Amino acid sequence: MARVLTPRAEDFPRWYQDVIAKAQLADNGPVRGTMVIRPTGYAIWERMQAEMDARIKAAGSENAYFPLFIPESYLRREAEHVEGFSPELAVVTHGGGKQLAEPVVVRPTSETVIGEFMAKWVDSYRDLPLLLNQWANVVRWELRPRVFLRTSEFLWQEGHTAHATEADARAYARKILHEVYEDFMVGVLGIPVLVGRKTAGERFAGATNTYTLEGMMGDGKALQMGTSHELGQNFARAFDITYSSATGGVEHAWTTSWGTSTRMLGGLIMCHGDDNGLRVPPRLAPVQAHVMIVKDGDGGALGSVAGAASKLRDALRDAGVRVGFDDRVDTPFGRRAVDAELKGYPVRVEVGPRDLAAGNAVLVRRTDGSKTPVAVPDVVASVLAALEADQQALYDEALKLRLDRTVTVGTLADAIEASATGWASVPWSEVGPAGEKEANGQGVTVRCLIRADGSVPDSEDEPELQAILARAY
Amino acid sequence: MARVLTPRAEDFPRWYQDVIAKAQLADNGPVRGTMVIRPTGYAIWERMQAEMDARIKAAGSENAYFPLFIPESYLRREAEHVEGFSPELAVVTHGGGKQLAEPVVVRPTSETVIGEFMAKWVDSYRDLPLLLNQWANVVRWELRPRVFLRTSEFLWQEGHTAHATEADARAYARKILHEVYEDFMVGVLGIPVLVGRKTAGERFAGATNTYTLEGMMGDGKALQMGTSHELGQNFARAFDITYSSATGGVEHAWTTSWGTSTRMLGGLIMCHGDDNGLRVPPRLAPVQAHVMIVKDGDGGALGSVAGAASKLRDALRDAGVRVGFDDRVDTPFGRRAVDAELKGYPVRVEVGPRDLAAGNAVLVRRTDGSKTPVAVPDVVASVLAALEADQQALYDEALKLRLDRTVTVGTLADAIEASATGWASVPWSEVGPAGEKEANGQGVTVRCLIRADGSVPDSEDEPELQAILARAY
Repeated sequence: MARVLTPRAEDFPRWYQDVIAKAQLADNGPVRGTMVIRPTGYAIWERMQAEMDARIKAAGSENAYFPLFIPESYLRREAEHVEGFSPELAVVTHGGGKQLAEPVVVRPTSETVIGEFMAKWVDSYRDLPLLLNQWANVVRWELRPRVFLRTSEFLWQEGHTAHATEADARAYARKILHEVYEDFMVGVLGIPVLVGRKTAGERFAGATNTYTLEGMMGDGKALQMGTSHELGQNFARAFDITYSSATGGVEHAWTTSWGTSTRMLGGLIMCHGDDNGLRVPPRLAPVQAHVMIVKDGDGGALGSVAGAASKLRDALRDAGVRVGFDDRVDTPFGRRAVDAELKGYPVRVEVGPRDLAAGNAVLVRRTDGSKTPVAVPDVVASVLAALEADQQALYDEALKLRLDRTVTVGTLADAIEASATGWASVPWSEVGPAGEKEANGQGVTVRCLIRADGSVPDSEDEPELQAILARAY
Repeated sequence: MARVLTPRAEDFPRWYQDVIAKAQLADNGPVRGTMVIRPTGYAIWERMQAEMDARIKAAGSENAYFPLFIPESYLRREAEHVEGFSPELAVVTHGGGKQLAEPVVVRPTSETVIGEFMAKWVDSYRDLPLLLNQWANVVRWELRPRVFLRTSEFLWQEGHTAHATEADARAYARKILHEVYEDFMVGVLGIPVLVGRKTAGERFAGATNTYTLEGMMGDGKALQMGTSHELGQNFARAFDITYSSATGGVEHAWTTSWGTSTRMLGGLIMCHGDDNGLRVPPRLAPVQAHVMIVKDGDGGALGSVAGAASKLRDALRDAGVRVGFDDRVDTPFGRRAVDAELKGYPVRVEVGPRDLAAGNAVLVRRTDGSKTPVAVPDVVASVLAALEADQQALYDEALKLRLDRTVTVGTLADAIEASATGWASVPWSEVGPAGEKEANGQGVTVRCLIRADGSVPDSEDEPELQAILARAY
């Protein structure tokens, strides 16, 4: 068979671009740094949205929609925020054929405009907490774009909440971190993210504390899969989000924000993909079982094969399986099989005249490539078992990689060296802000700080923290 | 009770703004013409999306996502298209701190950028039809903005398809018109839309044929609720969307586009709303039954009331009803009831100590305001029956209005006069392009052309067509 993809070991970044092109996940847009998400890629994003959205709503947040255009002056109200985002802004100077009196920016994120409305809507402590989320596009001009990972426009959800106390804001930022993000990434994406706290140097512009979920990609690099921020009273002061307390005083609220984006599609590819293409974890997959009709060599008996295949499709659908169906018998089977592998459908059910004559269909599992004849009446049960097992198998494989390629070292120099091939865990006391700068100079970043027991610290000044250093996307 | 809303008869536009503000559906955004869709409004939009999206997928289209930013040069490739949209464009001139070599426009619609990619993806007749849809925001600079109806940024779905023949393109544009749009608007929104064909003067910029769905609002004006366009080969020529046919020749494809937007929220308000607020048809409603705890006058027995209310909530949920729950007993009940009316929940289930002592809860139906004590074990069945009946009742009421306020006349002059209070049906032969201009000069437009039997014409040159004239939003 002709080589479809560049092997990962040969050139990982080229393999990544190959998968995106050949599996028809996305294209580059005409304006530099933008992307077109094709139906195969978008169907995965829709599944991510559905799973995330249910968790966000279960955590009590409600969806809303705020404008794409933000007055430039809003960004300037929070000093760190404007400093962080200014270099990445797209600016609209003309509208309706006229130059605008005040230029507007295309939102890079929405803390400012949402802060403005929180100030209008919050009056008393009874209005808190105010828990909002939006699904939207945002724009951050990218100098070195890469599809899904860094694009000038991307799709995301951004949550924004206001609380009466710092403790309540912190608890909610952590609730989202664990109950929404970690639960989804571990349980559905099958990615064993490391959950920790960003250093002051890596915080979101305007935050007092940033939590992060870091995934290890197939080449040992890190990808920030999502973040949850405590914003302290910074935005509440800048936008005057105040409330009258139960005791009658007027207080500034405490706010949080948190986001995940189409970047997760990049993480999915780089965490689970192999040299034959994408592998989509069953719980996420838009197509979990792909029923394929195999044409008879001599062109006979296609009717009964098609009938048996349709019945299997319906039986799988009735059992709650998301089913694809491929009856394009005029296309060579080999090409269709390669396409199914590229797109990473967890299970293929091949129905052909020869196997059917023996009462069988063939189950092909994408995770390990195994092909097993299964008696037709047992297909549904076998598919369900395979989906369950392969969800776990992909997670286990990713966890093994992360453990194998994370080394515990004692010095900054060793950590930087170890970052060439994976992650390094080193005492934060050996690094500190000065060591962090040194590492940054060599393309290595502190991905997060964690406690010795793996839990998330409340401050970077806690004793005995471990820093995770790595190269990152 | 204090007057909450301006009565419709007193000032319909002010009533509309009042409903939007008091039901907390939306706010004006800081940049002129933009809007903030608040959770109550957005939940309705999410329900619209879910119902529409299922129908769009059933019609065979797949979701994708194309970039927000379009090179200015793309728009210029189709002469009518650029002429139609130029006055409404928002233009980005700076990105990443630098002036852009070529300014980019914020998409007002995506025929051009999608045409560019259709050209890349379509090779042979086997690649057709190519059926795409996207859910996205678009920007059209508005001089006279009105929330939901005309906003500088709005949310919508836009479908874009390419076909091998004109007949196939026409059949698909009509399939979307009837099986997606009409089916949704009639069956879910409960709006008896009139489906017809736009005149040449009212066509989408770049289309060869535009189909429309027109709803009558409470004041007798028309609202265009959605459109489906045949684009002929205009965009296929401009973007070189060609395919090799089965016989070996190279042909231009035939394309369509079709869209519906957050404007439907405006139509919902103005079609079904009354002087007490919004009335949301049950099949659309995010909250179909709103269970409210009524506080005892003397503060006693709240525990058992709360228990009974929770049980009713769970029983309704188990029966597949979308349930809201209001246990804010510290807020005066009158205020909570007014809020529920404003937001238009189809059924309220009031659970209080006095009725409960008699074994009852009280069902309040938003459609007709009726209040009925119902034995607790019968509540679920009564709610289901009320939801079914009130879906029909709202449709019937809207249809009656449309029929009552549509008059059939014989001359253009009579049609223009009748448009002051409703719709006029007049022979198209009495109007024609010249009469259409005359009507336009007096604020009246030809909403659509229909055949005598109510069906949709293939051409505006068919004999015996009726023109529907009205004032419109």
